Amino acid sequence: MPTNTAPPDSFDSFLSRLFQGEKRAISRAISEVENESPDAVRLLDEIYGKTGNAYRIGVTGPPGAGKSTLTNELALYYRSQNKSVAIVAVDPTSPFTGGALLGDRIRMQTSSLDTGVYIRSMAARGSLGGLSKKAKEAADVLDAAGFDIILFETVGVGQSELDIAQAADTTVVVLVPESGDAVQAMKAGLMEIADVFVMNKCDRDGANQAVSALHAILQFRIPGNGGANDGKTGAGNKWLPPVVQTIGAEGKGSKELADAIESHKQWELTSGHFRTARMTQLRERILELVSEQVNARFWTKDKEELMEREITNVASRSISPYKVVESLIKT
Amino acid sequence: MPTNTAPPDSFDSFLSRLFQGEKRAISRAISEVENESPDAVRLLDEIYGKTGNAYRIGVTGPPGAGKSTLTNELALYYRSQNKSVAIVAVDPTSPFTGGALLGDRIRMQTSSLDTGVYIRSMAARGSLGGLSKKAKEAADVLDAAGFDIILFETVGVGQSELDIAQAADTTVVVLVPESGDAVQAMKAGLMEIADVFVMNKCDRDGANQAVSALHAILQFRIPGNGGANDGKTGAGNKWLPPVVQTIGAEGKGSKELADAIESHKQWELTSGHFRTARMTQLRERILELVSEQVNARFWTKDKEELMEREITNVASRSISPYKVVESLIKT
Repeated sequence: MPTNTAPPDSFDSFLSRLFQGEKRAISRAISEVENESPDAVRLLDEIYGKTGNAYRIGVTGPPGAGKSTLTNELALYYRSQNKSVAIVAVDPTSPFTGGALLGDRIRMQTSSLDTGVYIRSMAARGSLGGLSKKAKEAADVLDAAGFDIILFETVGVGQSELDIAQAADTTVVVLVPESGDAVQAMKAGLMEIADVFVMNKCDRDGANQAVSALHAILQFRIPGNGGANDGKTGAGNKWLPPVVQTIGAEGKGSKELADAIESHKQWELTSGHFRTARMTQLRERILELVSEQVNARFWTKDKEELMEREITNVASRSISPYKVVESLIKT
Repeated sequence: MPTNTAPPDSFDSFLSRLFQGEKRAISRAISEVENESPDAVRLLDEIYGKTGNAYRIGVTGPPGAGKSTLTNELALYYRSQNKSVAIVAVDPTSPFTGGALLGDRIRMQTSSLDTGVYIRSMAARGSLGGLSKKAKEAADVLDAAGFDIILFETVGVGQSELDIAQAADTTVVVLVPESGDAVQAMKAGLMEIADVFVMNKCDRDGANQAVSALHAILQFRIPGNGGANDGKTGAGNKWLPPVVQTIGAEGKGSKELADAIESHKQWELTSGHFRTARMTQLRERILELVSEQVNARFWTKDKEELMEREITNVASRSISPYKVVESLIKT
């Protein structure tokens, strides 16, 4: 019914609603980023001046460690401190897993009646390595919309941990006391990205031993560390990740976790590491954007046709892909 | 002592030693690929005509599922069939984890006195998304060196699973009967990449229930599947991943696993999927190589200096990264 349609939403009014933190505008903006819509770059360009105020926290760890519950509790704690919180659940997988994830999300919606909380699932289908870029862009949207705290939560395992660490100011790695969890985390590269450790489900058997084992690994990791590993000794060049004990399901330890994150933030700011890390992020973002554009300009119709003609020759091994690239670059 | 040094190894003699399967030449070639040395592209170009004969199998799954042991047993089974086997343990993490990994590797060296077996750890430090490219290139080296079977094993979790699936012809996902393992695997996106499932440590409690649960999930996944999920019904357009039960530590089930992999290979070949997948890999490789070169050509000294001048303005938010990219592209 064309006569009944509202006038099309102008870009400017969309922007001003976004800056006011209107949830529908936020959702639309994140969708544009997620889908790489034609307006996405313009949007990100326009909002950039309003970013830089939110603190970005990544929550990651092995499956079953209780990341969702802990993220929820942390969000509730920040709300009790009058800070607005956005949660981005980052899912590296496909639509097939939607069902399982939805269950987690519904659990988290307990806090969603609160207007100071925004919750969003974000997928990065098909774009290997594009996850950290999209997560950062979504964080920019939420930052410009005025949120104080942005929590990234990784869903399951997969390739998302390192991406999240790149997009976050503080990365929290959640472990549980199960035997060998810390060793597995070490193998998985989670030790490298942790700024704060959480030993969750600390009412379980073996919690104390698991915390001791983790401390032992951390001390082995940082030479010259005299043994005090409470995060407060990290005032110099190196940050020593503290280990916070929580029982997520009972909300125990959320304040201590928020305090540990705050200590890390203060260390980041005073050590100058925060500025360096943000500069590195900006440099990488520029490199990514340039790469997208130079590739798009390179692949003219002629070149695509040349590649398609040669690809069967490459498959039959009568020419190597390296020789094909050589001739593509020459033309 | 310069007078005692051997004449420098010529590239041609290096190549011919590689084609004869000489282990030192193989190790050197993989190192060049891994380190992206100046000779790497020339090497890959020269060997390309000799590739295409090895079958590439990826072994992945959650930490603690017994991937190393199972890979080792599978290698021993292939050796008993007179096939030569190369194992590439792909590690997405950093030097810090070297200690833990070394332990695994030493275990695997039980089969390394055999000249028909080659074992190699491969890291992909710093290069997000570069893992599948390097794994594929290492496989090309091993393929040209004459190995019949190439086994990629992922170490721990991390971002390596999807990369490995991209580099492998058949991807084996290893699970254990622990409750919820299949559900966690589903969340982690492992269901999407599996061509063959292994339920390892099948002497544990709950093994039968875990296998049933996995079958139930697989049938939910593939609409119209009448229930028979033994892999043999996959002769048409869709492959139904079979579930093989093993006890890796006792070598039980290795033959059945090799048979399931062979069934998948035959389906890949007869369905035409093998050719399509290899063509897609080639197309992606050409796109990657082109991207590397156009980016390298773009970043002249002038442009790098322009970016460095502007980056502080971007950090202070007086200009957006998108505007900087615009002016970089224009100059």
